[in-house]
Amino acid sequence: MQLGMVGLGRMGANIVRRLLRHGHTCVAYDRNPEPGRQLAAEGAEMVSDLPALVATLKPPRVVWLMLPAGQITEAAIHALAGLLAPGDVIIDGGNTFWKDDIRRARELSEKSLHYVDVGTSGGVWGLERGYCMMIGGEKAVVDRLDPIFAALAPGRGEIPPTPGRAGRDPRAEQGYIHAGPSGAGHFVKMVHNGIEYGLMQAYAEGFEILKHADSAELPQEQRFDLDLADVAEVWRRGSVVSSWLLDLTAMALANDPKLDSFAGYVEDSGEGRWTINAAVEEAVPAIVLSAALYARFRSRQEASFADKMLSAMRKGFGGHQEPKKS
Amino acid sequence: MQLGMVGLGRMGANIVRRLLRHGHTCVAYDRNPEPGRQLAAEGAEMVSDLPALVATLKPPRVVWLMLPAGQITEAAIHALAGLLAPGDVIIDGGNTFWKDDIRRARELSEKSLHYVDVGTSGGVWGLERGYCMMIGGEKAVVDRLDPIFAALAPGRGEIPPTPGRAGRDPRAEQGYIHAGPSGAGHFVKMVHNGIEYGLMQAYAEGFEILKHADSAELPQEQRFDLDLADVAEVWRRGSVVSSWLLDLTAMALANDPKLDSFAGYVEDSGEGRWTINAAVEEAVPAIVLSAALYARFRSRQEASFADKMLSAMRKGFGGHQEPKKS
Amino acid sequence: MQLGMVGLGRMGANIVRRLLRHGHTCVAYDRNPEPGRQLAAEGAEMVSDLPALVATLKPPRVVWLMLPAGQITEAAIHALAGLLAPGDVIIDGGNTFWKDDIRRARELSEKSLHYVDVGTSGGVWGLERGYCMMIGGEKAVVDRLDPIFAALAPGRGEIPPTPGRAGRDPRAEQGYIHAGPSGAGHFVKMVHNGIEYGLMQAYAEGFEILKHADSAELPQEQRFDLDLADVAEVWRRGSVVSSWLLDLTAMALANDPKLDSFAGYVEDSGEGRWTINAAVEEAVPAIVLSAALYARFRSRQEASFADKMLSAMRKGFGGHQEPKKS
Amino acid sequence: MQLGMVGLGRMGANIVRRLLRHGHTCVAYDRNPEPGRQLAAEGAEMVSDLPALVATLKPPRVVWLMLPAGQITEAAIHALAGLLAPGDVIIDGGNTFWKDDIRRARELSEKSLHYVDVGTSGGVWGLERGYCMMIGGEKAVVDRLDPIFAALAPGRGEIPPTPGRAGRDPRAEQGYIHAGPSGAGHFVKMVHNGIEYGLMQAYAEGFEILKHADSAELPQEQRFDLDLADVAEVWRRGSVVSSWLLDLTAMALANDPKLDSFAGYVEDSGEGRWTINAAVEEAVPAIVLSAALYARFRSRQEASFADKMLSAMRKGFGGHQEPKKS
Repeated sequence: MQLGMVGLGRMGANIVRRLLRHGHTCVAYDRNPEPGRQLAAEGAEMVSDLPALVATLKPPRVVWLMLPAGQITEAAIHALAGLLAPGDVIIDGGNTFWKDDIRRARELSEKSLHYVDVGTSGGVWGLERGYCMMIGGEKAVVDRLDPIFAALAPGRGEIPPTPGRAGRDPRAEQGYIHAGPSGAGHFVKMVHNGIEYGLMQAYAEGFEILKHADSAELPQEQRFDLDLADVAEVWRRGSVVSSWLLDLTAMALANDPKLDSFAGYVEDSGEGRWTINAAVEEAVPAIVLSAALYARFRSRQEASFADKMLSAMRKGFGGHQEPKKS
Repeated sequence: MQLGMVGLGRMGANIVRRLLRHGHTCVAYDRNPEPGRQLAAEGAEMVSDLPALVATLKPPRVVWLMLPAGQITEAAIHALAGLLAPGDVIIDGGNTFWKDDIRRARELSEKSLHYVDVGTSGGVWGLERGYCMMIGGEKAVVDRLDPIFAALAPGRGEIPPTPGRAGRDPRAEQGYIHAGPSGAGHFVKMVHNGIEYGLMQAYAEGFEILKHADSAELPQEQRFDLDLADVAEVWRRGSVVSSWLLDLTAMALANDPKLDSFAGYVEDSGEGRWTINAAVEEAVPAIVLSAALYARFRSRQEASFADKMLSAMRKGFGGHQEPKKS
Repeated sequence: MQLGMVGLGRMGANIVRRLLRHGHTCVAYDRNPEPGRQLAAEGAEMVSDLPALVATLKPPRVVWLMLPAGQITEAAIHALAGLLAPGDVIIDGGNTFWKDDIRRARELSEKSLHYVDVGTSGGVWGLERGYCMMIGGEKAVVDRLDPIFAALAPGRGEIPPTPGRAGRDPRAEQGYIHAGPSGAGHFVKMVHNGIEYGLMQAYAEGFEILKHADSAELPQEQRFDLDLADVAEVWRRGSVVSSWLLDLTAMALANDPKLDSFAGYVEDSGEGRWTINAAVEEAVPAIVLSAALYARFRSRQEASFADKMLSAMRKGFGGHQEPKKS
Repeated sequence: MQLGMVGLGRMGANIVRRLLRHGHTCVAYDRNPEPGRQLAAEGAEMVSDLPALVATLKPPRVVWLMLPAGQITEAAIHALAGLLAPGDVIIDGGNTFWKDDIRRARELSEKSLHYVDVGTSGGVWGLERGYCMMIGGEKAVVDRLDPIFAALAPGRGEIPPTPGRAGRDPRAEQGYIHAGPSGAGHFVKMVHNGIEYGLMQAYAEGFEILKHADSAELPQEQRFDLDLADVAEVWRRGSVVSSWLLDLTAMALANDPKLDSFAGYVEDSGEGRWTINAAVEEAVPAIVLSAALYARFRSRQEASFADKMLSAMRKGFGGHQEPKKS
């Protein structure tokens, strides 16, 4: 199949690469010409603007956007909507808010354009491992695009099949699903990221407890000086907490056992926040996912106003004078 | 009544003062002679060691310990146990772990000594407002000591009576209760402090949300520059969140609206921790009380290992390079 | 002053009553004629629809809406906007989402109508205690309405003044503030309610720990059978956790010590949810306020899907067969 | 090597089996003769009491206890201590509290007996997958027992090696580590379980959000009816949240998509609780691990006293009458 790609950051470029390797044809555009040079050498056809992209693609066209979510993606969709023809498809593979998908699909349908939202997991490993995709949109359109998704997906690989799946959608075992109508793809991806935050925080807290097992707050005979790299490694085999995140943790600790190369400042992306908003909307008690997000917020604060409030109250009722942070 | 006081820190000294003002007699000891000088001028009889204290008190003696919980209190009790006579009473008014009370009461009863644990709230305001006391021990002993407790307690004051309390223990309205057998006093005081942490954190989070209502993360037209001192003040009258902690907050913000005099480093005492341990033992889901304690732990960390773990994982799966903390 | 009131639920009717008692004039409307009958006897002028309300009021008119937030309030504002004249004022005293206030103020200003949002705390006690009000809107308009707010506010009462407030806005000590531009009133009220949730949950968890101090999970000699009504009462005097919520708790426990009249099903209103959304938008770690909200969500679930997931995993890795809930 | 096994529950019996299959010799005892019948047929030598076990084993003896933690294990160790000879080894492979390990090792060393604590993960899958083991004790003793541990461990298997481990302890890659002195094994296993709780809760909350994506609390056009079995399956390949727990979740959902076979009542074991206690002792903010434990506590409550408290307060300040749970 032929696909147009807009946005050649790491994700976009590697998606093009993986498609090319699977025999698909790609026309690509990025406002920065740099990343396209290498891709051209690998077989992609580079164009210099959106009109050229649309002109080059054969109808019905399929244009995949891999751009920062928000205004940049919104503007690109608006521009494409003025260029594409009825029956063409826009895929948004970025980290878009699912309610924006619902709105866009409705707006584009008025021009007989199709919109498909693809939550894409895989990060820097996707080129090699394949991309796990959660797809939202009209069934007929998603079915039509199946060769694209099948090529990008990881496939069954060496992962053992799940017993009891006979008769179920075989795409899930290949690493992609049609989750539902517009927005469903990004909704499922959003929750994926929310869970990711929770899993990461669970490991992080556990390893911090291991780390501080030699804390001076403990009696001398109850302290342990544990080798965290070995702990992470041993849990990779036969334990209940084995996971890909643990694999990555074991790698990080093997190379930097005290993680001195990190400052402890942790960003968060929209999905973690939207997951909490969704939980609140649904009245689901998502305390762990919320706590995981808040831990990131807190990591970025030097001295929080809330903490100063606590000190002020303690001084008020008890005359406690808190020490200054060193 | 006559009371022996061991430990003349702010709490101990003010307890002596309040008893003297109510016509009681006090013999007092502190290894540091300084705080006793002023108390002697106010009518306390100062002694220079524990044997002198015991020799000076008339049997059956009542000795109140107001010392740092843990080893110092434990040692004083051990020393007193060798000096006192059957029928004498040791009161521990400090912040002792309630299981220690249970053990001590059992040990002292073998020498026919009585042990009373008094959880004492009031801080620097106790001399003026009176002390809220939660008492554990044998009924006959607690009853015998009633004149002491009645003098120390705040009394009904101008606080409106609670409807429906006819027939209930009138001491609660005076600001002290006999909570139960040994340990019950400190247990109730422990939970009091656990709640205190939760209340403080609730205010602290709320005021931080108000504070950051002008955050650059928000759209310009949705930002507010709120006067936190006025907000705290207005809530003192007619709102659902009025409390003594809010009164103290209003004072602090009136004098230091940005709380610049605080570094955001917040200590915790044993009671907050023991409250969590008690919740875990009882299988009670105390998430707010736990979160309040953990916020204090976090306030004292510069860069947490947990946060570095998160950054290490993010780098692992997404190639994210976190910014360094400024 | 003359005020038009739309909505005569408990809050609306009592606001009218309090204004009448302070010598103000009220014209009132509710689609249900019942609540107005008694108010008419107390001096309010009742009208039968919005046009009559507008016709009766003297310009510049002031119309206070005390209606359920959301569509009902929105529809009333839309209707009034078509009836009122330039310079007239609409006050929304309900629990409106603050971003709706910002939008409405902008829309109404195009018709030279003024909009004032008033977060109103006081509940069933407001008639007697007065209403704590957090006000958003244009300064000149809020100033013009001052007689109304001054009458509704609790006033200084017997609450001791906060030291250090010399030179600050005296309205805060009377129980009302002009918090900022449109939306600021409801924003502050929203956070008030968020804090309220946190405070309530802190008490609730603490009392549950006290309640289960006699749990069979504990060793026999470490159990206490505590009188929760007395504990709540004693903390009202001299303790750090005294508050109005504690006063209410003491009343409830005095009359129903085991709270058998409650099923443990707890509603939440929009403000608690919006507070979390605001925290997420501002990147403020509001873990206690979130946990308090989630506890209410959880209280309304019989058997949560999340819990079933846990059991399913436990069965998967350990063969654990969870007992059925009785 | 020759090993004595005490306790032939599922774990104990399968450990014997795995050792026999690897050419080791086992003498086994359980007070219930049933489980031993099959094991005898597989090559284990069954004995009828502890003295017979000791008499049958050749010195220096190695006795592995696989019994319920607490009094039962404690009693068995006490009995064995009276039977074994200097130089013999007791291994506790159960879920023992790590501070008990420290105490026992000290007590047994007075009789020149060695004590090794082995945190063992693997559950019902251990016979097939091998057991992940975290070992505490004296280096020379742990080294001497290496053939046992090597046989029980999963081995490298098909799990890709972690780059950068050259020069590190090769046992970690085989699935077992010598974590440190006595107690270190169970300490690391405890934190493993604490993390396990956190991971499970993160998945559980995420899937509950997916589940309720069709909640009637949401606007009609924003609802999704998601196939959770397919979502779990798709995340197994190429996503960031892939893990063994997710594999198990996919199995459970494939066979029981609504998890109707579960009541939502979730047990917890000691390790989750001890992890929280350790965090509190170390002053590590373990909010996610705590929340995960508390969710289990909550799952076992019908109507919590805390929730009734909330309703009582709401009635107090707002006259809210909560609906009864159906």
